[in-house]
Parts: sequence; C-alpha cells; structure tokens
Amino acid sequence: MRMVRVAVMPGQGAPVELREVPEPALEPGAALLRVELSEVCGTDVALRDGRLAGVPYPIIPGHVSAGRLQAIRGTLLDLEGRPFHEGDLVTFLDVHRTCNACWSCLVAKASTRCPRRKVYGITYGLADGLAGGWADAMVLKPGTLCLRLDGPPERFMTGGCSLPTALHAVERGDVGIGDTVLVLGSGPVGLSAIIVSLMRGAAAVLCIGAPAARLEAARAVGAAATCDISEADGETRLAWVLERTSGRGADVTIEATGAPEAVVQAMRCTRDAGRVVVAGQYADHGDASFNPHADLNRKHLDVRGCWGSDFSHFHRAVRIAADPERSRPWSRLPAERYPLERANHALEDVAAHRVVKALIVPGDAGA
Amino acid sequence: MRMVRVAVMPGQGAPVELREVPEPALEPGAALLRVELSEVCGTDVALRDGRLAGVPYPIIPGHVSAGRLQAIRGTLLDLEGRPFHEGDLVTFLDVHRTCNACWSCLVAKASTRCPRRKVYGITYGLADGLAGGWADAMVLKPGTLCLRLDGPPERFMTGGCSLPTALHAVERGDVGIGDTVLVLGSGPVGLSAIIVSLMRGAAAVLCIGAPAARLEAARAVGAAATCDISEADGETRLAWVLERTSGRGADVTIEATGAPEAVVQAMRCTRDAGRVVVAGQYADHGDASFNPHADLNRKHLDVRGCWGSDFSHFHRAVRIAADPERSRPWSRLPAERYPLERANHALEDVAAHRVVKALIVPGDAGA
Amino acid sequence: MRMVRVAVMPGQGAPVELREVPEPALEPGAALLRVELSEVCGTDVALRDGRLAGVPYPIIPGHVSAGRLQAIRGTLLDLEGRPFHEGDLVTFLDVHRTCNACWSCLVAKASTRCPRRKVYGITYGLADGLAGGWADAMVLKPGTLCLRLDGPPERFMTGGCSLPTALHAVERGDVGIGDTVLVLGSGPVGLSAIIVSLMRGAAAVLCIGAPAARLEAARAVGAAATCDISEADGETRLAWVLERTSGRGADVTIEATGAPEAVVQAMRCTRDAGRVVVAGQYADHGDASFNPHADLNRKHLDVRGCWGSDFSHFHRAVRIAADPERSRPWSRLPAERYPLERANHALEDVAAHRVVKALIVPGDAGA
Amino acid sequence: MRMVRVAVMPGQGAPVELREVPEPALEPGAALLRVELSEVCGTDVALRDGRLAGVPYPIIPGHVSAGRLQAIRGTLLDLEGRPFHEGDLVTFLDVHRTCNACWSCLVAKASTRCPRRKVYGITYGLADGLAGGWADAMVLKPGTLCLRLDGPPERFMTGGCSLPTALHAVERGDVGIGDTVLVLGSGPVGLSAIIVSLMRGAAAVLCIGAPAARLEAARAVGAAATCDISEADGETRLAWVLERTSGRGADVTIEATGAPEAVVQAMRCTRDAGRVVVAGQYADHGDASFNPHADLNRKHLDVRGCWGSDFSHFHRAVRIAADPERSRPWSRLPAERYPLERANHALEDVAAHRVVKALIVPGDAGA
Repeated sequence: MRMVRVAVMPGQGAPVELREVPEPALEPGAALLRVELSEVCGTDVALRDGRLAGVPYPIIPGHVSAGRLQAIRGTLLDLEGRPFHEGDLVTFLDVHRTCNACWSCLVAKASTRCPRRKVYGITYGLADGLAGGWADAMVLKPGTLCLRLDGPPERFMTGGCSLPTALHAVERGDVGIGDTVLVLGSGPVGLSAIIVSLMRGAAAVLCIGAPAARLEAARAVGAAATCDISEADGETRLAWVLERTSGRGADVTIEATGAPEAVVQAMRCTRDAGRVVVAGQYADHGDASFNPHADLNRKHLDVRGCWGSDFSHFHRAVRIAADPERSRPWSRLPAERYPLERANHALEDVAAHRVVKALIVPGDAGA
Repeated sequence: MRMVRVAVMPGQGAPVELREVPEPALEPGAALLRVELSEVCGTDVALRDGRLAGVPYPIIPGHVSAGRLQAIRGTLLDLEGRPFHEGDLVTFLDVHRTCNACWSCLVAKASTRCPRRKVYGITYGLADGLAGGWADAMVLKPGTLCLRLDGPPERFMTGGCSLPTALHAVERGDVGIGDTVLVLGSGPVGLSAIIVSLMRGAAAVLCIGAPAARLEAARAVGAAATCDISEADGETRLAWVLERTSGRGADVTIEATGAPEAVVQAMRCTRDAGRVVVAGQYADHGDASFNPHADLNRKHLDVRGCWGSDFSHFHRAVRIAADPERSRPWSRLPAERYPLERANHALEDVAAHRVVKALIVPGDAGA
Repeated sequence: MRMVRVAVMPGQGAPVELREVPEPALEPGAALLRVELSEVCGTDVALRDGRLAGVPYPIIPGHVSAGRLQAIRGTLLDLEGRPFHEGDLVTFLDVHRTCNACWSCLVAKASTRCPRRKVYGITYGLADGLAGGWADAMVLKPGTLCLRLDGPPERFMTGGCSLPTALHAVERGDVGIGDTVLVLGSGPVGLSAIIVSLMRGAAAVLCIGAPAARLEAARAVGAAATCDISEADGETRLAWVLERTSGRGADVTIEATGAPEAVVQAMRCTRDAGRVVVAGQYADHGDASFNPHADLNRKHLDVRGCWGSDFSHFHRAVRIAADPERSRPWSRLPAERYPLERANHALEDVAAHRVVKALIVPGDAGA
Repeated sequence: MRMVRVAVMPGQGAPVELREVPEPALEPGAALLRVELSEVCGTDVALRDGRLAGVPYPIIPGHVSAGRLQAIRGTLLDLEGRPFHEGDLVTFLDVHRTCNACWSCLVAKASTRCPRRKVYGITYGLADGLAGGWADAMVLKPGTLCLRLDGPPERFMTGGCSLPTALHAVERGDVGIGDTVLVLGSGPVGLSAIIVSLMRGAAAVLCIGAPAARLEAARAVGAAATCDISEADGETRLAWVLERTSGRGADVTIEATGAPEAVVQAMRCTRDAGRVVVAGQYADHGDASFNPHADLNRKHLDVRGCWGSDFSHFHRAVRIAADPERSRPWSRLPAERYPLERANHALEDVAAHRVVKALIVPGDAGA
C-alpha cells in the first residue's frame, strides 16, 4: 500500500503535524492529484488559530493548489466537454458541491452562499479523505471543476486564491476606466486588487497598508502612492486620500485588511455616490462603529460585502495567469517556498506579514 | 403693494412666526404660485430643532407644495416644451439649480449630491425671497421644474415628499416580483415604501415600527404583518422577521426610521446576498455599532445609502398620483390639515408621531 | 403490469396518437407524477409541425404540467431541503439537467443556453421514458426540481409556461414604475406580459394583436388600449403607439408574436434609449429587414433576446399563482379543457387562435 | 477689425472654401479659442456628402478641437469651480446646450438624445458664429464645458472624437476582464475600441476590417488577430471568429463600420448571451436583413445601439490622454496633418481610408 505524506492541523491552536496516510482507492469520477504547489494564506492562519466556524478538525489545509493528474478513475471532463488526461497540469476550484438545487443557488443566484458548498482544505476535513493541498497528493472528488494550467504553475499560484478574490471584489466594485481606486490592505488580496483594478482601467490606485516591504510591493505592481498605517492615524489617512482625489475621496474603495475599523475608514475615504467593497472580513475580529447619517446615507454610498468567489472568477484568474503580459505584475511579488516539513514556519511568516506570498512545495526536501 | 402671509422659522429651536411680506416683482422666467397645500414632514421638525447643517435661517419652510400659477413672467415650459398657463394647477421639484456643470452632475451622475443644488424651504431662506410653501404664495425661480397635477392636489400631497423618496429607495433596492420586503419605520416614507414595494410586485411586505396607529395604517396600505418596536426588542424583531422568511431574512430591507441602530438591524434582518437601502438617516442622530464580518462581508450584502430624489422620481410620483387606481392606497392614510396659524401645532403633532400626514393649507381660516 | 395512457407525436406533421405503455420501475431519486393538468401551447403546435430542431420523435408532448406525486423512490427534497411526500400536489421545472459544469452555466451564467439541458415534452422523447405531461402519469427523473402548489392547480396552469416566460421578458425589459409598456402579441405570453408588466408598476400597457377575442382578454387583464393587426398596417400601428406616448414610443416593448417583422415594428414603436425584449421568435419563421441607423443606433436602443426561463422565474411564477390577489388576472382568461383523446383538437384550436389557453386533463373522460 | 480664417462647407456636395470673417465680440460667459488642432473624421465626410439630416449649411466643420483660450469674457469655470485663465490649453465637449430640462435629459436620462442639444461643427452653422474648429479661432459659447489638457494636444487629438465614442461603446458593451472582444471596423473608432477594450481587461481583441494599413495599425495597438474583409466573405469571417473563440463567438462585439450588414454579422459572430454594441451607423446607409429567431432570440443576445457620448466619456478621454502610459497606444497611430488650405485633401484622404487619422492645423502654412 502506497503512503501519502500530509500536513495536518489537529485542532484549534495546535501546530501542524506531518503524518502518513494510505493512498485511497478512487471512486468513479475522482482523480488523484500529485501536488506541486499549495498555498498558505491568511485563511490558513485563521484555521490554525480557530477563528473560523464549522471547521471539521483535524484537517489537511491547502485550498488552492496546483499539480499533475496522476490517476483518473473513469472520465474527467473540462468545461468544453473534452477529457483530461493523466499527466495534465491542472488547478481546481476549491469550492465543491455548490448544489445548484437550493434557494441560494437557484433563486438568489448567490452560489457563494450555498449551504451545501464544501471547500477543500477548510470545510472538508481529514475524515473526508485527502481533501487538502498540503500533501504529496490529494483526491479530487467527483464533480470537482478542474482547469488546465498553461505555463509554469508558479505563475498562477503566486496570485493563488487572492487573484479570484480580488477579481470578484474589483467587479463587485464595478471599477471602470478613469476611476481612482483606494485599496485598504497590502496583503495578497490587496496587492492583487491593485493589479486587477489597473487591469480594468483604473486611472490611479492608492494603497494604505503595512509593513514597508508590502507597500514597496504595492508600488512595484502599480500603486500610484502608498500610506503606511503605522505612521498615520485615521484622520491623517483620510486627509492623505482627499489630497489625491480633489477633496472628494476615491471612486471605489476595496477593503482587504481584516480589521473591522477599516470598513468605516473605507466609507469615509470614498466619494459621495461611490462604492465600497468589503472583502477583508473573512473572520470575526469584532465590531466597528460608524455614523449612518454622515458615512452612508448622506453620501449616497454603496457598501458591498463580497464573500468568496465562484467559478467564473476562478476561470478568468487562470486565463490571466496563462497570459505572460497580463500576469507579469504578480511575477514581481516575492514568493517564499516551504517544504511540507516547514508548514508551521510558513504559517508564522504569513501571520507576522514577514512574507508577501507563501507556497507549500511538497516535492521539496525538508530543511 | 400686495402683502403675502408667510410662516417663518426664525432660527434653531424658535417657534414659527406668522409674518407679512410684500409680494415681490417677478424676474423673467419666474412665476408666482398661489399655494393650496404644503407639506409638514420630519425634515421640518429637524429644521425647527436645528438638526440640519447649512440652513440659512430665517426660512419659510415647506419644500413640497402644490398650487395654482397666479402669474408667469415670460414663458414657463413643461418637459415637452409646451407653455404653462396662469391658473394651471401644478407642483414642482423642490430641488433647484442642480447645476449640470459639475463633477457630481456630469461625471458621477449623482445630481442629488450636486454642491450647487438648493432646496426650497430648506436651503433657500427668507433672504432668497418667497422660497417656501408655508405661505399664501411663493415664487418659483427661473429654471424651477413644474408639473401639472391632474385630479385634486390632495391626491399627490398625501404622499408628498415621501412618495418620490420611497420610489427612489424601492428602485435603489431593486425590489422585484416575488420579493419579501421589510420596511423599518412606519412614518410617511415607510408607509409609501410599503405601497411602492407592492407596486413593484413584492410578494409580501413586513413592517416594523410604531405607534399602533401608524402600524394600522401600514396594514391598511398592504403590509402583510407588522411588529411594534415598543413591544419587541432587537432579537425579538429579528426572530419575527426570520419566522416569516423561511429563516433567511428579507430579500430587501428599506430603512426609514431615523434611528442609527435601525441600520444595523436592517443588515441583520436581510438575507444573504440581499439588499439594504438606508433612507432614514437624513439628520445626524449618532453612531451605531455593527460586526463587519457577520453583518456585511459573510452575508455578501449590499447596503445602499439613498439621498434625496431627482426629477425622474418626482415625475413618476406625479404620474402615480394622477392614476386613481395606483394612488388609492395613499387615500387610505389619514391626513391632518392645518391653517398657517397652526404651523407650530402641525410640527408638534408630526414630532410626536400623533398624525400620519400633516398638510399646511394656507387658504383655510386659522383657529 | 400497470399501463399508462400517453399521447404521442410520432413525427413531424403526423397527428397525435393515444398509446398505452407499461408503467416503468423508478430509478433511485425518481418519482411518478399522476398528471392532473398539462399545457398545450404554441410550442406544441411547432412540435407537431416539425418546426423545432433537435426533437427526438416520437415524443410525449406536455412540458409544463401539474399533478400529484404518486410514488417517490428514495428521497425527493424541496429547495429548503425538506422531503416531498407521496400525495403532494406539485409542478416542476420542465428544464432538466442544466449541468452547472459547462462554460454556459458557469462562466457566461446563461443556463438557458446550457448545451446539456433537456426539456420534458420537447427534447426528451419517448425513448427517454414517460417524459411528457400528456399522459395519465409521467416520471420525474432524479434531479427534477419540484415545487408544491398551494391552491387549485388551475390557478398555476392557466398561466402555465407563459407566466415564467413573461416574467423573464418583463425583467429583462427592466419594466419599472411609471413605464408605458407595449406588448406585441395577444397569445398566452403576450397576455401574461401585460399582467406582469402591471405587476411591476407599469403606468399603462398597450397591446397590438389579434383576433378580437384575445384583445378582449388583453383589456380584461388590464391593457389600457388594444389595436387589432387585422385592421391596421405597420404605419397605422406605429402612429397608434406614438399618439399614446407623447410622440415618443413605448418605454419598453415586449415582442411575443412569432412574426419576424414584429421585431422591427418593436424597435420602431419604442422610444429613444428604450428597451425591446424579443420573446416571441421561438421557431424560425424567416428573416426581417431593418434600418440599423434609424431603428437601432440613432435611437440608442437596447434590443434583448430572451430565451426560455430558469428556475428563478419558475419559482416566482408558482409563488404568484399561490397568491389569490396576484393571480386574479389569469382567472379572467378563459381556459379550454381537453381529455387526452382530444389532444389533436386542442392543437388545432391553439394553432387557429380559437382559444386563449388550452389544457390537457388526462383524468377527464374522452368525448 | 481682426479677421479670422475659416474653412466653410457651403452645402451638400460642395467643396470646402476658405473664407475670412470678422472676429466677433464675445457675449458674457463666452471665450475665444485659438485653434491648434481640429479633427477630420468620418462625420465630416458625411457632412460634405450631405448624408446627415438637419445640418444648417453653410457650416464651419471641426467638432473636436484643441487650442488656447485667447480671451474670456467674464468667468469661465472648470468642473471644480476654479476659473480658467487666458492662455490655458483646453479642449471642450462638442455637444452644447444639453438642456437638463426635458424628458430625455431628466426622465430617460439619455442626454445624448436631448432634442435641444447642439454640436459644434455639425448642427451649429456659420449663422451661429465661429462654431467650428477648422478655423484660426472659434468662439466657445456660454455654457461650453472645457477641460484643461496636460501634455501636448496631439496626445488627446490623435484619439480625438473616436476616444470618447469608443469609451462609450466599450462601457455599453460592459467589456470585462477575460473577455474576448471582436471589433468590426478598423477606422479611428474601431482602433480606439481595440485599445479601450484592452484597457478594460479584455483577454483578446479580434478585428475585422480593411485596408491592410489599418489592420496593421490594429495589430500595433494590440489586436490579437485581424481579418481583411476584402479577402474574406461573411461566412469565412464567421468561421475565422469561431475558430478563435472555442466555437462560441466573441463575448462582446463592437460594430464600428458604417455598413448596415455589419450589424447582422456582429450578431452572428457573438456568443449566446453575449453583447453587441452598434456604434458605426451614424448615417443612413440602408437596410439589413436578419433572422430574429437564430440571430437574436435563441441566442439570448443583447444588441445595444450607442449614440454619441456624454461629458462623462469626454472627461475620462481627456484623463486617459493626460497619462503617458495609458495614451501610448494612440501614439502608435500615424496622424496626418493638414493646413486649413488643404481641408479638401484631408476629406478625400479620410473618405478613401488613405490615412488613419487626419488633423487640421490652422497654424501651419498652406502648401
């Protein structure tokens, strides 16, 4: 019996452990993916710290991953109805079992809120099988939506989950040609939001974040100006934005911080009749206080929560990554690589904002 | 020299005084309106109490009014380019001088936020002339947009400013056929929002408000169920809504209360991926605290501030009022009439929520 | 072995035959529906005449149907995840197997264009089983989306497939409060479009169609005025519309005729910057000629093809039918009932526009 | 008295004449513009040939122009309310007197269809004063909306009127990240549509046009592939598009040709549920025939006429031109310069598609 090395989060607050589990038999329609790269993102830190509800510990983390199809049981079709072959380099939508049969999917057309959806590496646990990417191999269950990767997997994985998330946020913000966009946050989602806003024709993108290395990355991918939150309080930041927007505020603000008060800052930094997209509150970090009259109603503001992303975002993210020109900005972001054995270091580096992007590379030898 | 009786708010917190001022000569393009009905609404109470910024006291209140054109200097054209005649029964858009030449008007296309706009009875004061409707007559300045009234003026004025405001809110909420709509607030805007939501095809409208007489009015105009805020705390209200919406919350919630915390309640009572329209925070009543994760981001919610209304809403409001069938629900709302001399009583009754709708009738004899 | 009576269209141009086929065993997740009512609509005439592509004759017609669940193999869940029970009165979405896995479903989000979708009574044939409603019983395959019917099934079936179709068209036309809507065609879709436009707040609906009895029905369900095509040529019709719309044309026109030239008439009868929805060209009736400069570009017009409907429309159609108030207009439409044996008569009556609505009632005794 | 040289089109079909007219006195609010560059576009050829309705010959052509403010009578304010000064380099919206008081402006919110709008160089004639740009100087009437130009005027004028027109078309087509866009036509609007589509994030732009030099320009500004209409009939072009779009057709097609049959080609080359923008039918070139079933209804297609552009497009066009990076693609387009004396040559070159872009430079010495 062949064994697969997997990194396991045993429970809330406990460090990741390396284990070996037997490679399972595949059910019809399933496939075995030899993982080449898997992502470490803020969600994984929240998983480690137990800040997400409904996580079936123990779990194998790693929701967005890329690798080669090692075995396919039966037929696995792509969007056009053509079969995948063993050896194909693919990634897959981490959201599985959006049901297309419930009120959210069919009436509200809000599939990211489908109550039956399951996410590899987050709401699928070890009990569900090899269902996370921090592993030598994982199992793609029947119905998993795969996409071929053109070019080296790094090109897609450096954006990783931040790319469809940012794409969703930028579209929900209806960023258009000539807009001035403010991005709050300079982590992976914030950096991708800068790139994608410019891709939609924004005239200028401002970024407020920290630390210095990430703001440098923000400028490297095209931000016109950056402001360091460690050096500017709320009023100074607001003044900084107004100075750069004829006193009006940004046309669109994309919040990608995780800090509740940033949502209120976003409202204040946005012009009247502008749009605020809230994409950074994936875990509960507490309450924030705002003034409904001045911050919302009188401003005739649109504030839009943006949860997850769906296949349309993922599909286009992969298409962007396949384009050497369009994907170039991400190649300017430093990505740190960690073998499976160093998963805990990866989590610590991400939690401390010491790296811009962290990738698990199961094939690399441990230190 | 002919004199005109006007009701004047001398300044913040002072009672309304009756004065007589000379009837002015008309500049070219202006008209004199013999006022038949003028509205008393929550904004007038806020004016009296000094809760609005930028009011040029002393002012003649009365923004939405109806009457007959007594004199026209030169030509006054309607939307189709046809002239109005003396004796025509008209109403007019209370917003004047939206400039069509600034960034808000032309680039953001957000004319309700045009910095040059002036509102009769609110941001035009006595120094600007007979610029409010609580008077025997008022002057419509050149460029004022008038509309003929078909049928008795009461039919339009019973809705009054609440009708275009509600129309704007309901459209901004994109209420559609089959939706369940929750209206927070049972004042004139809330009641009109119930009627207009049903006019757009809502399957059911729930209303949370007070006092009992207004909730009775809410049911009379079509609310499927009402909940009295004096008898139910926030959690009870939320449970009441969930019970009536398959546990999901309303598709669209329209906030029309004036209470900051109602905005947060609106978010919580709305289903995932639903829409909240904030139309009740016209004055600053303080802050509210919410949870950006649970109330906004995870819900994938749209929260939309809705400020004022523009001519398109006003035009349709007048068209609705001209239709005996469409305007019928407003006729079920009790409207209290006050002569000019009793303007202070009208304000007190409105402030205390003792009446559903209050109208100033300058032609009526005072008590 | 129990036998089921079914009405079969053997092939293009051949009359319907009554046959008896054995009641099949149910696969897991399937259900047997005892049909109470099944619809006869223009599509069935097109099926008989062989004007639709890709029909797998022989077929059992009858796409929209209602009846009682006679047997369920395993579990059949509703939208909320609650089980249906044997004896429940239901209807079901006639579109089956929208795949939620192809480019149309997932990227374009245009499920009505999913290449894998199958429609009961149209693209499922006899070889696929009891897959049409003109039968004593039919089989709902696994994954069929069912909805409970409140109230008598006639209330839903009198609208039948025309109700979700019209709902889709009216929404695609973004009909709003105060709009003047022009409906071209007075068949079931046209009549439902009148009702649904008024339900969305249209100020007035004009209808151009024929024959007299259907125009009478149009007025009975709320059309403000009707024009008989047999008495008015294209120019006269245009003049008739302009007269009723301040010389501008309708805000929204919904084409529901089947005649290619009606699409051009629709463009000409709509105001500048208005919307035309094309919902009546379900079969190929040839070409039409228009002037792209005058009819489309200079008018800044939106012309929107509208194909089929999805579950969201169906769900709301059923909700409307469950509401005695909202569904009342349909009750004013005369519905003719035919036993299975008279299916050919039903088709002839529908083809000749002799009836407004035709329903197959398998339980009725034949003549 | 100072004299101004102007190029005049005396009437339909007659060649342009050079005349000298006295420099007029300015009314309050007006300004005199010393013209540096004025455009020659397809509309000017249509003007010469008498193919536009309502032109008040004789006229001074030249609608989009740039120059320096030589004299201002009174105050001329920018969008932010700051005064312009004599010597400022500006351009201006060629559409004047959009009334903001009619049904089109206020209810339909379709200002490009305002019946009172006047366009410099097109619907203003010589009788209206120095109202066209093919002149040493022109008069900007009160209410003309001016914008400062940063950088050399060539940068804006090389795009000229094609830039806001294309911007409007691309926005009306809702071009998004990852879309495949098909542009029909390779004249200035087509070329700008290619650039602007890429600016909105299109993954690939295909272009069908002629002659070879313009297709070379199309590739120079980013078209992924081009097809020469002189070498491919309609079916070949359709096959060419399908080959490059997985057999589906373009997500968005922008028609910018002037040929009626191109509108039908656009429908056929667009995918199901895609969008067609018709922006090339500015003059009447006759009828076209299409199949409403196959080309529109079954495709669930959106076909959108796009007339003119408004200030929001113009404002952003100027902002794009001010950005060295964003405006770079236009700098790759060859622009031919003509002194006033050679205006007829310019018209002939544009009519024969011999040049990509033609500019009148009044300050240049004639040949």
